Amino acid sequence: MERTCVVLNSNDMPRSWYNLMADIPNPPPPPLHPGTLQPLGPADLAPLFPTSLIEQEVSAEPDITIPDPVLDILTMWRPTPLIRARRLEKALKTPAKIYFKNESVSPTGSHKPNTAVAQAFYNKREGVKRLATETGAGQWGSSLAFACAMFGMECKVYMVAVSFHQKPYRKALMESYGATVVSSPSTTTGTGRRFLEQDPKCSGSLGIAISEAVEDAAGRDDTKYSLGSVLNHVLLHQTVVGLEAKRQFDMIGDYPDLVIGCVGGGSNFSGLAFPFVRDKIYGRPVDFIATEPTSCPTLTKGEYRYDFGDSARLTPLVPMYTLGHQFMPAAIHAGGLRYHGDAPLLCQLVKDGLVSAQAYTQLEVFEAALLFARTEGIMPAPESSHAIKAAIDAAHRASEEGQTKTILFNLSGHGHFDMSAYTDYLEGKLTDHVMSDGELRDSLAKLEGLPNAGHEV
Amino acid sequence: MERTCVVLNSNDMPRSWYNLMADIPNPPPPPLHPGTLQPLGPADLAPLFPTSLIEQEVSAEPDITIPDPVLDILTMWRPTPLIRARRLEKALKTPAKIYFKNESVSPTGSHKPNTAVAQAFYNKREGVKRLATETGAGQWGSSLAFACAMFGMECKVYMVAVSFHQKPYRKALMESYGATVVSSPSTTTGTGRRFLEQDPKCSGSLGIAISEAVEDAAGRDDTKYSLGSVLNHVLLHQTVVGLEAKRQFDMIGDYPDLVIGCVGGGSNFSGLAFPFVRDKIYGRPVDFIATEPTSCPTLTKGEYRYDFGDSARLTPLVPMYTLGHQFMPAAIHAGGLRYHGDAPLLCQLVKDGLVSAQAYTQLEVFEAALLFARTEGIMPAPESSHAIKAAIDAAHRASEEGQTKTILFNLSGHGHFDMSAYTDYLEGKLTDHVMSDGELRDSLAKLEGLPNAGHEV
Repeated sequence: MERTCVVLNSNDMPRSWYNLMADIPNPPPPPLHPGTLQPLGPADLAPLFPTSLIEQEVSAEPDITIPDPVLDILTMWRPTPLIRARRLEKALKTPAKIYFKNESVSPTGSHKPNTAVAQAFYNKREGVKRLATETGAGQWGSSLAFACAMFGMECKVYMVAVSFHQKPYRKALMESYGATVVSSPSTTTGTGRRFLEQDPKCSGSLGIAISEAVEDAAGRDDTKYSLGSVLNHVLLHQTVVGLEAKRQFDMIGDYPDLVIGCVGGGSNFSGLAFPFVRDKIYGRPVDFIATEPTSCPTLTKGEYRYDFGDSARLTPLVPMYTLGHQFMPAAIHAGGLRYHGDAPLLCQLVKDGLVSAQAYTQLEVFEAALLFARTEGIMPAPESSHAIKAAIDAAHRASEEGQTKTILFNLSGHGHFDMSAYTDYLEGKLTDHVMSDGELRDSLAKLEGLPNAGHEV
Repeated sequence: MERTCVVLNSNDMPRSWYNLMADIPNPPPPPLHPGTLQPLGPADLAPLFPTSLIEQEVSAEPDITIPDPVLDILTMWRPTPLIRARRLEKALKTPAKIYFKNESVSPTGSHKPNTAVAQAFYNKREGVKRLATETGAGQWGSSLAFACAMFGMECKVYMVAVSFHQKPYRKALMESYGATVVSSPSTTTGTGRRFLEQDPKCSGSLGIAISEAVEDAAGRDDTKYSLGSVLNHVLLHQTVVGLEAKRQFDMIGDYPDLVIGCVGGGSNFSGLAFPFVRDKIYGRPVDFIATEPTSCPTLTKGEYRYDFGDSARLTPLVPMYTLGHQFMPAAIHAGGLRYHGDAPLLCQLVKDGLVSAQAYTQLEVFEAALLFARTEGIMPAPESSHAIKAAIDAAHRASEEGQTKTILFNLSGHGHFDMSAYTDYLEGKLTDHVMSDGELRDSLAKLEGLPNAGHEV
């Protein structure tokens, strides 16, 4: 029997995170204060984040030690397996070797707890009693709820109204971990009340939910704010994924030619890719594909410039590829990939040609997901299935070229809480959405007057 | 950092199953043909099961080799981790060590694929193209659907009508693996049509669904029947769980004083316990608790005698503790624990005092489940939470007695598809059910005239 699953012992877990800021050829321009348009200083972030996370956000140290209490919790499910998808390879009749990093084995079923645990730890250590956050489909909210349960902290989640009603199981998961979950817009914040006054049936948005969580955290001494993607320190915490994968490839004497991940805000892709990007910077040949939906094609169609992180223009201005902060993507089932921007660090890599991007339609992604489920057994999250689709395409190219490529993708989560999407697909109810050039033009027009990140600041 | 998770390499997986029939002091009496009341012969089972499984059903060989193609699929998620529940221990302030075997990491989230894969393999090898089965809450049906996808076989699942409508996500999971799922009673079998004629709104039962699947398999040359618990060969396939656990305890130089599992038909309890029961038979001190709901107290209140496996009296007569084959338990949320009987091998161990049994109410079980989720991070299935409750009680006893007990329980599955139950619990909508002596008397009265298993046959 050939080995199909590469397992690291918990004693072999990485003891530090890898910080790409130490090696990136062109660091991204700094985020700007939304009022002054000047580079953001640590003091600007202090009301929302604890000191240790602000330090990580601006650090250029290559290796940042993972504290023991964080390691202790991560080893509840880490290191995660690196699995060779032999059955998928066989079904594709490809000479390519396809590996995936199985992040779906975490307590909440995705990579999100990797940073949730670290964030809860640093907040707890600095005396914070309560964390506030937003969540769309619920992956992030349930991960922070889990992390808060581990450290005995309170957790308040503002959940986008449409998901609050459509995804009751995710809400139940958060509440089971002890979190308080409200539908956003809610009556508990000024922002929420204003939106409800305008439209009592408002179905909410991630932008509104972010504003509510930020307002909550800024208004209470015992509370800080927590974000599940985009920021440097979030990507940093996710690098355990790629560091483990590198060790696992060492164990079997292999190395990927191609590393793939899906991108919503960029944290699962970056977590897997950054340790390999470091190798590429120092001359090792390895390619990267960041995948996204055609309905929210941030990296493939967006403009690189400064934009707000939220729809309500409350956050700092961030240098990134963006579709415009007021863009409302179609209600596709990969709810985690519907963000108008992406992490500045990742965007810089795309801009500099170190990472390429590829968009897929919803139907081709679900087709790939079912092939994966029926060969490898695991029901993938619709988000992660964008990475599966790219891996399958790469394997087909390898077949055509007769090359033995080694492909690695991040299975960032399972689909147990997304089964209604699969029902819709199986019943022929899903449709494709492609953002048009006209839509893009209209959305970007609303950014007029904001500084251009291409210029020196 | 202390090791919290004991991981076996896939090369260290057991290469054979352990057959308790080789060592059990008193083998159970044979099953009887429902027509002749004579001991069942292999020929009686041939229309429903392939030869290799019938041989395993009656074998007394101690070790039965796991075929390589079965191992190859099991290693997609096996060996499963043995985890020390240090956070739970700390919350309980107990000197006891609590370990659990994490069977929730399988593709369908429970121990069920351990036998589904083996059954699909043997059927496939003997030329069977299609398997028919019943499912209640859907754990078994989705596991067989997964196994059939792995071997390129068709799968037909008769799903109890009430679950078919209440658990659409489980149905979607089965269909995603390519299975055909119908609500039972269905219009596709004579049995189903008869029940629908009597009551077009019939909400179904496991008994009816079994009859439909058996009728389907008996009526088609390309199809066999598959059962997810109770039978000797099913329990045999589950012994990988206990064999792995023993090796894992060897690795850390420990051994359990107490082994715990929940019981619906008996397969997850037996799979974990039988390799340790063998040790007990040969003199090693180790205790066992089989847990069940007070609403379906088969082992704690049932009568040991011959009874039918299904409500429609189509199956062989089986020697077991039973509440009577027409007993309809309350609609509790641990749908997998609502069977009127239990596996004959397990019942024999209870009868002979090798295994003790304990029943718990629904509310105390959900309370234990949430404590586990908030300490160990994993949302447990309501079924498995009966084992968690027993482990917690044992830990409390150890605290009172000041003893350092080593407790092992089987986390037979996760609760991702049971979140509505947790919502009901959190909202105070769950109630307790205890089967009364009157109910039991009435139910057992319907067995009059069936042979008594206490007598020689």
